[in-house]
Amino acid sequence: MSSEGSFPADRPATSNGTGAEQLQHVVDLYGVMAYGELSAFERFSSDARFSPTLKDRADLGRLAVVEFGHFELVSAELARLGVDVQVAMAPFQASIDAFHERTRPGDWYESLMKAYVTDAVSGDFYRAIADRLDPDTRALVSRIKENEDQLTLLTTRLRRALEHDERLASRLALWGRRLVGEALTQAQRIGIERAFLGALLGLDDPAAQQTVTAELFAELTRNHSRRMNALGLTA
Amino acid sequence: MSSEGSFPADRPATSNGTGAEQLQHVVDLYGVMAYGELSAFERFSSDARFSPTLKDRADLGRLAVVEFGHFELVSAELARLGVDVQVAMAPFQASIDAFHERTRPGDWYESLMKAYVTDAVSGDFYRAIADRLDPDTRALVSRIKENEDQLTLLTTRLRRALEHDERLASRLALWGRRLVGEALTQAQRIGIERAFLGALLGLDDPAAQQTVTAELFAELTRNHSRRMNALGLTA
Repeated sequence: MSSEGSFPADRPATSNGTGAEQLQHVVDLYGVMAYGELSAFERFSSDARFSPTLKDRADLGRLAVVEFGHFELVSAELARLGVDVQVAMAPFQASIDAFHERTRPGDWYESLMKAYVTDAVSGDFYRAIADRLDPDTRALVSRIKENEDQLTLLTTRLRRALEHDERLASRLALWGRRLVGEALTQAQRIGIERAFLGALLGLDDPAAQQTVTAELFAELTRNHSRRMNALGLTA
Repeated sequence: MSSEGSFPADRPATSNGTGAEQLQHVVDLYGVMAYGELSAFERFSSDARFSPTLKDRADLGRLAVVEFGHFELVSAELARLGVDVQVAMAPFQASIDAFHERTRPGDWYESLMKAYVTDAVSGDFYRAIADRLDPDTRALVSRIKENEDQLTLLTTRLRRALEHDERLASRLALWGRRLVGEALTQAQRIGIERAFLGALLGLDDPAAQQTVTAELFAELTRNHSRRMNALGLTA
């Protein structure tokens, strides 16, 4: 379930610009993570209410609380850098809100799938970016995204639901595709608006930036397909 | 902000029935608390989304996470008693859900007020019951309801909003009255359905139970009025 892709480990590390630019990239990464985790917390905890059992409700609530813990961690790190977390989050609010608005779960299984897909894809995305940054940033990102327990809980619960339910399986397969599509659309929007994706990857040339971004997204999609297949779903 | 009432400290402690009955009362108290905290967590974290600033969102989210921590504490205590938390919560689900359905906040200020009123009134209610139970139960309840930080944050934020806004003040005064009315209605329903309010208070005689319950509710209402006045609102 961890970052399995070859991206971007096999690329030579290139310069990432000046110290100030580097700092801005770190702040951007933390800002998008902070808002991502804060809004995931709010969405998952309110979705928890629709769980089929009280146990499922408590389990989903617990996942939401973990997301809030991540938000607190990233906030503390931003504070250490002298950056207000509200300021760092602001540029990413529109894209992440749009993602959630466009992917409102129709029921509890869709919530579960959404939690799984967003956690996994955002984890890959953040890690791919952090791999290009300093060791401290990388460490924080992997600490936050080392969420095996969460992902295991989600996949176990999804597998149990899908086992004897072909209609649910085909519905969730479609839903998974839509989720990853929306996630990548918004990630791309963020990358373009903040001009930080390519820059983070250490490339000045817009054409090269585009190629690298396309490769990253292809990698994210491949990882997603692998995960869907592991659930017995056609990605 | 703590339990100021004289109820029930000035009543002589009477027998609370057999050990098995006592245990059932403790389980009932923990069950209602567990479900109360779990649903407060879900409601407040989803309401957080409508906060006027990102800072307010994070603050309200943090309060919700504290509620989830309480749920976990009570669950652990029930597990220690050999009782499944789902089973203990089930009898109280309908009443607490009804309370939330009937008090959907219209905006963020109403959410804030709801968080404040439910936290404070439920704290008084649980403490009044726990005062009749064993020291361990009392200790757990006061540990959970020792939420000065939460209440201070809520009152500070409410006071700031109310300072120069008379229309908001009169709207929130009405809203506060409705909240406490609904809370007491549901508390009474729980008391009657589970026949545990009077029994908890150590009285076998239904007429005496009714008197004591009425006194308790009068006390809860008085505490509520004091709190509203402290906010500059007419209760």
